[in-house]
Amino acid sequence: MSGDPENPERAAVNALAGDFLAGLREWLAIPSIGTDPAHHGDVGRSARWLADALRRDGWPDVQVWDTGPALPAVYACRPAADPDAPTVLVYGHHDVQPVDPVEQWHHPPFEPTLVGEELFGRGASDDKGQIAMHLLGVKAHLAAVGAAQPAVTIKLFIEGEEESGSPFLTRLLDDHRDELECDLVVFTDTPLYARDAPTICTGQRGVYGAEVVFTGGSSDVHSGRAGGSVPNPATAIARLVAALHDDQGRVQLRDFYADVVEPTETERADYAALPFDENVWLANSGGAQALSGEEGWSTLERVWVRPTAEVNGIHGGYTGPGLKTIVPASASVKLSFRLVPDQRLEQVADALREFVAAHTPPGLRAEVIPRGDGVPPYAMDVSHPAVGALRDAVEGAFDQPVRFSRTGGSGPAALLHGWLGVPVVYLGATLPDDRIHAPNERVVVPLLLRGAEAAARLWRLLPERLS
Amino acid sequence: MSGDPENPERAAVNALAGDFLAGLREWLAIPSIGTDPAHHGDVGRSARWLADALRRDGWPDVQVWDTGPALPAVYACRPAADPDAPTVLVYGHHDVQPVDPVEQWHHPPFEPTLVGEELFGRGASDDKGQIAMHLLGVKAHLAAVGAAQPAVTIKLFIEGEEESGSPFLTRLLDDHRDELECDLVVFTDTPLYARDAPTICTGQRGVYGAEVVFTGGSSDVHSGRAGGSVPNPATAIARLVAALHDDQGRVQLRDFYADVVEPTETERADYAALPFDENVWLANSGGAQALSGEEGWSTLERVWVRPTAEVNGIHGGYTGPGLKTIVPASASVKLSFRLVPDQRLEQVADALREFVAAHTPPGLRAEVIPRGDGVPPYAMDVSHPAVGALRDAVEGAFDQPVRFSRTGGSGPAALLHGWLGVPVVYLGATLPDDRIHAPNERVVVPLLLRGAEAAARLWRLLPERLS
Repeated sequence: MSGDPENPERAAVNALAGDFLAGLREWLAIPSIGTDPAHHGDVGRSARWLADALRRDGWPDVQVWDTGPALPAVYACRPAADPDAPTVLVYGHHDVQPVDPVEQWHHPPFEPTLVGEELFGRGASDDKGQIAMHLLGVKAHLAAVGAAQPAVTIKLFIEGEEESGSPFLTRLLDDHRDELECDLVVFTDTPLYARDAPTICTGQRGVYGAEVVFTGGSSDVHSGRAGGSVPNPATAIARLVAALHDDQGRVQLRDFYADVVEPTETERADYAALPFDENVWLANSGGAQALSGEEGWSTLERVWVRPTAEVNGIHGGYTGPGLKTIVPASASVKLSFRLVPDQRLEQVADALREFVAAHTPPGLRAEVIPRGDGVPPYAMDVSHPAVGALRDAVEGAFDQPVRFSRTGGSGPAALLHGWLGVPVVYLGATLPDDRIHAPNERVVVPLLLRGAEAAARLWRLLPERLS
Repeated sequence: MSGDPENPERAAVNALAGDFLAGLREWLAIPSIGTDPAHHGDVGRSARWLADALRRDGWPDVQVWDTGPALPAVYACRPAADPDAPTVLVYGHHDVQPVDPVEQWHHPPFEPTLVGEELFGRGASDDKGQIAMHLLGVKAHLAAVGAAQPAVTIKLFIEGEEESGSPFLTRLLDDHRDELECDLVVFTDTPLYARDAPTICTGQRGVYGAEVVFTGGSSDVHSGRAGGSVPNPATAIARLVAALHDDQGRVQLRDFYADVVEPTETERADYAALPFDENVWLANSGGAQALSGEEGWSTLERVWVRPTAEVNGIHGGYTGPGLKTIVPASASVKLSFRLVPDQRLEQVADALREFVAAHTPPGLRAEVIPRGDGVPPYAMDVSHPAVGALRDAVEGAFDQPVRFSRTGGSGPAALLHGWLGVPVVYLGATLPDDRIHAPNERVVVPLLLRGAEAAARLWRLLPERLS
C-alpha cells in the first residue's frame, strides 16, 4: 500500500475505509445482547466473528475465552518485532444493550443502515464501532510504517459482559494474568466531547448503588383508621431522600467529599473553554427544562468531577389510578452515587448505612441492599508520557489542538488499573449524542476513521515516548 | 308478642334474633360490590332483597331508586300514628368493598359463616349488618310498644355507592327532597369504641385527596450522562413530602389549623378514660411497630380530632428488580388529608396548590390533580336533645354508662347535614377490629342485637325529647 509521505496513517486509513465499514456492518448485525440470556448464543457468535476477523487480519494469537462463567471474551496478541518494545492492552467490549422500545427505531437495530456519514445500529457507537476502529488502526499502522509487525506489542481484550456490569471481569483477569500482562491499557469505551471539539477523556466517575427499604406494618392500613397515629414509611423515605442534599446541592453523607480530588486549574480552564450549549445539553438530557446541581460548579464540572447522589426510583403504597386512602406498609428508594477520585466504595457504603440508620424513625425497620459491588472512579495521570503521545496522536489525527474532558459515566478502568498495575489511558472517537443505550444508536463514521488514525499514530509514537 | 315489663325492647330483640340472623345471612350472600362494574347487577339484587324484606316487615312505602346515575338505593317510610311526631331518617349503605386478596379469607366472603358469636362475610359489619340491625330495631320497637305504627316516623335511606365515594349522593338528595325530609338523621356506619367500652360516636374526619406530579424531561436519562446537572423529579417530590410536616408532626400547609375546633375538656377526658392497649392498636394498624404522630396529643386524639397529611402512594423512575441508573422523567405522590371540623375542603385545596407551587424547583413542571370532591368533616352537636335520648338508649341497651368517641374515617354525614338542614347523630354497634375493607370481615352478633335494642329504645324516647 502506497503511503502519503506527509500523512501515512491517514492515507492508509482512507484506503482501508471501505473494507472497514463492510466488516463493521457484518458484526453489528449480530444481536449480542449480553443482558438477555436468550441472546447469549449471539454473544458467542459475536466473539467468533471478531476472532475470525482478527485472524484474517493476520493476528498470530487469537483466543475466544468462552469457558464461563463470563460471557465469551476475545483476546488477541500481535507482537512487536522488537522484543523490548512496550506492550499495550486495548480494552473494549462486544456485548450490546437491549433495544427496547424497538418501535422507536427508524431502522431495525440489527440491520445496520448508513445514512450520510452516520451508521445506525445497536452497538455502532457502544462499543463495536470503536473496537473495529482499533482493528483498522493496527492495519493502518502496519501500512504506514511498512512493516509486518507493529512498533509496540498490541494485545486486545474485548469482554462480553460490560453492559451487565462486568460481573466476572476480575475472574478473567485472574485466570489470564500472563496473557494480559502489559505496560499500558488503552481503554476504548468513551466519547469525544463534541464533533467540533475533539477531546481526550481523562477519567470516568465510579458508581455505587443501593436500595433502601423502610417497613412499618405487615400490611397497608386504612388512613382513616390509623392515619396520624403510626409512622408512614413513604413519608419517612421521602424525608430520607430530602436529607440527602443540602440547599446547595451537596450530598450529606458523612465525609462524602473528604477524598474528592478537586480538578486542577488547567482542567477547569479546559472545561470552561469547551463549547457549551445549554439547550443542546438539556435536549440530550431527556428534554430536561433547566440546569441544576451543586452550587459553585459548571454543568460540565458537575457531571465530570463532582460526585452526586441520584434517586433512580422511588416506590411505596398505592400507585394505581385514583386514590386509595392507606398508610403504606413499606416504601423504598433506589439510590446511586456517582463517585470521583479518590472516593472509595467502602467509605460511601458505610456512610450510607450510617445515614439510613440516623434517618430511620422509631417504628420503622430499615434495610440497605447494595446493588452490585459498585465501580470505582478513575482518572488518568495526565503527566504520564503515554498521555503526551496520546495527545500528539489525537491532535495529529484531528488536525487541531485537543483539550481534556471527562465523562460522567462509569467503567472498569480503575479495576483494570488495579489488577494489571499499569496506567490506563482513554482513546475514543464517538460522541455523547450517539444515543447509546437508547433507540437509534449511531456512530459518525468519519470520526471512527480519525480515531483509527489516532491509534495508528499512537502505536508509532509510543516506543520512543515510553523508553 | 309478650314483652318483658322490665325491658320490653330486649325481650323483643331476643325473640326476633333467629329470624334476624337468617335474613342477614341471605343478604350477605349477594356480592354487591359497587366499585366493580361486573357486580353492578348484584347491587341491584341487593337493593331488591332489602326492599322485599321491608315489605315483608310491613313497611307501607318501599322504593328502589334505580334510574341512575347513582347505583340502586332503597328508600322506605313507616309513618308514626301521630302526624305531629318527629321524622327520623336512617342513613346507611348496602354496597360492599371488593374482597381481594380473596385467598386470605378463611371462609368464602359471600358464604356468610357463623363461628361462635361472630358472623363472617363481606358487608357483615360494613354496612349490611347495621342496616339489618335497624330493621330488627323497628320490629322490636313495635313489639315493645305494642303498636302497629312507630312512635316516630321512620325513613330509611340506604345508598348503593358509599364505597365508591357517593359520587351521585347529592343528585339523589336533590331528586328526592320530599321523601327525604326529616327532623333528624341517624347515621349508621360507624363503630363502637370497643366491645367492653361501648361508646357513642360524635364525629368523623373529612378527607381531601390529590395527586402531585413533577415532570422534568420527556424521558428518563442516564444518570452517568446527566446526573448532577438536571433536576431530579423524584428528589423534588421527596423534598415536597418531607416539607409537609415539621419535626413536631404538624402539617405545614398555610392556615391548616386555623379552623380546627379543639376538643373540649370533657371530650379529652372521655377519650383518656377509654381503655387503650398500645399493642392492640398497633396490631389493628397493619402490624405497625410503634406509635407516632403530632406531638402533644394522645393516639385517640391524633386519629379522632386532629387533622393529618398522609402519603398514600409515591412513585417515580425505575422500580423493577436491581438497579437502573437513571434520572427519572417524572415522579408523583398521592396525598390525602384527613380533616376535622371546621376545616374546609376549598381552603385545604388552595393551600396545597400554593404549597406545591412554593416547593416546585426550577426546571420541573408541577401538576396537582384533585381526586374526587373530598368529604367534609362532621361532628354532632352533643348538646342537642336527640343526643341525650341517644345516650339513654345506648346506655340502656348496653347496661352501662357510655362515653363519647369519634372515628378517624370519613363519610357523608356533613353532606346529609348540609342538604337536609337537620342534625345528624351516629348510632352504630360494630367494632374497629371488624376488618372492614379487609379479608375476614366479621360482625359480633350480640352487639348488633344490643344496637337494635338501642334503636328501639331511641324511637320510643325521641317524641318526648324532641317535643
